[in-house]
Amino acid sequence: MNTRIRLGIAGYGNLGRGVEAAVARNPDTELVGIFTRRAPASVQPLSAATPVHALDGIDAHAARIDVLVLCGGSKSDLPQQGPALAARFNTVDSFDTHARIPDYFAAVDAAARAGGKTAIVAVGWDPGLFSLARVYGEAVLAQGATYTFWGRGVSQGHSDAIRRVPGVRAAVQYTIPVPEAIERVRRGENPQLTTREKHTRECWVVLEPGADPRAVEHAIRTMPDYFADYDTCVHFVDEATLRREHAAMPHGGFVIRSGRTGANTAQKIEFSLALHSNPEFTASVLVAYARAAARLAARGEHGARTVFDIAPGLLSPQSAAELRAALL
Amino acid sequence: MNTRIRLGIAGYGNLGRGVEAAVARNPDTELVGIFTRRAPASVQPLSAATPVHALDGIDAHAARIDVLVLCGGSKSDLPQQGPALAARFNTVDSFDTHARIPDYFAAVDAAARAGGKTAIVAVGWDPGLFSLARVYGEAVLAQGATYTFWGRGVSQGHSDAIRRVPGVRAAVQYTIPVPEAIERVRRGENPQLTTREKHTRECWVVLEPGADPRAVEHAIRTMPDYFADYDTCVHFVDEATLRREHAAMPHGGFVIRSGRTGANTAQKIEFSLALHSNPEFTASVLVAYARAAARLAARGEHGARTVFDIAPGLLSPQSAAELRAALL
Repeated sequence: MNTRIRLGIAGYGNLGRGVEAAVARNPDTELVGIFTRRAPASVQPLSAATPVHALDGIDAHAARIDVLVLCGGSKSDLPQQGPALAARFNTVDSFDTHARIPDYFAAVDAAARAGGKTAIVAVGWDPGLFSLARVYGEAVLAQGATYTFWGRGVSQGHSDAIRRVPGVRAAVQYTIPVPEAIERVRRGENPQLTTREKHTRECWVVLEPGADPRAVEHAIRTMPDYFADYDTCVHFVDEATLRREHAAMPHGGFVIRSGRTGANTAQKIEFSLALHSNPEFTASVLVAYARAAARLAARGEHGARTVFDIAPGLLSPQSAAELRAALL
Repeated sequence: MNTRIRLGIAGYGNLGRGVEAAVARNPDTELVGIFTRRAPASVQPLSAATPVHALDGIDAHAARIDVLVLCGGSKSDLPQQGPALAARFNTVDSFDTHARIPDYFAAVDAAARAGGKTAIVAVGWDPGLFSLARVYGEAVLAQGATYTFWGRGVSQGHSDAIRRVPGVRAAVQYTIPVPEAIERVRRGENPQLTTREKHTRECWVVLEPGADPRAVEHAIRTMPDYFADYDTCVHFVDEATLRREHAAMPHGGFVIRSGRTGANTAQKIEFSLALHSNPEFTASVLVAYARAAARLAARGEHGARTVFDIAPGLLSPQSAAELRAALL
């Protein structure tokens, strides 16, 4: 491919910044610009050379954008933006509400087919690379058990849930896999593990002035869905400490497929990630899949796809012959 | 898919036995039979119900075989059988001489295209799943370093090399990754590692009566390509001990991609296998790719493919919609 793949970024938060950084590290891609719902002049890109435009006016740039990388959130942005933009652009997104993926896929698929565009949805690491590890693992070891552990890492959803507790000014929540559980899985025991046995939750909380720490701790530890089923520890810190020690967004985890291929032959496949920046890593996965989206679109393969539908070689800047010679 | 995928096995050694065992664990597949160059009556399949036929007469069974799993060796069997059989059958094989893959791919591709067949070559774990880990890792982390460590496991090639030393009756060689090297890579140091720093070699040798152990040890440790560049230890044992303690064929290893997505954000992707039976695992990968070959053939996608060309979802017995709902 001699001409570079021209990408646009729709939405400029942590993920959008990660995409801007990833484009700089992938020489076969270039950035057309950032498209934002905020006032463009209020957005400060990593590089002063990156143009910032209003998302409203993006259609005027359509001819210069090969693939639009959607960097909005899964809760309210993507359900609306995903189908709307896939009707007019080839897109990749990191929609990550697992339970809603089938509906979201159907909506984006219909829009992309109608518009003659290609959209790869639910790209990142979970859903994304972890999903791939589950599919490869279960296809290869037909009989066995699959385990996903997350962390140690910051869960945005759980941090947000703590912030909604009365008396909380700021909070960061770490999801931590239980080492004993991982060891049992690695030993091939194929254990049945409860929610509590798999992960613990660690909370760093800044209180509002006058808030009662015992009431806040109780509200957190008994919160249904988010904390009640886990062993949760709550630490109170001042705001400066939270900013200094808990501003990074590390994450990662493990997918382990453990099975047998004979009466006495245990086999184990393990995939793991250790990430210093969750959004930068997710953005890097998005850019690799944007490369695949550009190639599928060029072949006229329209509609929605997931990571399960994308041949791995399409993610690489190298040709199929180069990959066979160098990496097979 | 309501009808089962009908597989044939061409060649019945450890790998062929592994395929027979894998078919039994994959209910959407069935085994048409074993095809052997030996006298069929001399072959004892795992299941007495498995038919054994002469490979010579395989064309008479062609209409009943959806995919033929080639279980011959890469040195002398597959270079001849791969193209010859891919002209008449959809095939999968585990050709694993890395340096010759491009030539082998070209020969199989030409034969399969001419015959209107689909062939997936170089399937297994290295080449195979490890190759996938390298491609995914390098596509996602565009800037970084990739490391492959093998073992602890039995290397058939190195065991064979020892057996060619005068005075050696039998031998098993284990390839062992150096723990310190793995730790340095996991820490994100991106070290430059020599051959000697990455792996050690452990040899278990049964001498011929009257052979000089010091001469044998010297011949092994100084053997070019196989041992001279490694720290090698040689243990002498009697034949009963070798059979009792070193008859299993464990293997495994690690592929680690370590890179940065920002000035201070190190990211690490790790894929690892811990296998109690190398041939049974390789056979399980072959059966998953046989499923993909049957699907590609049904769509009329002819010619040779590698793991890089196969969308992951094609390996699974589940439909794309089921995978999106359950595993994404």
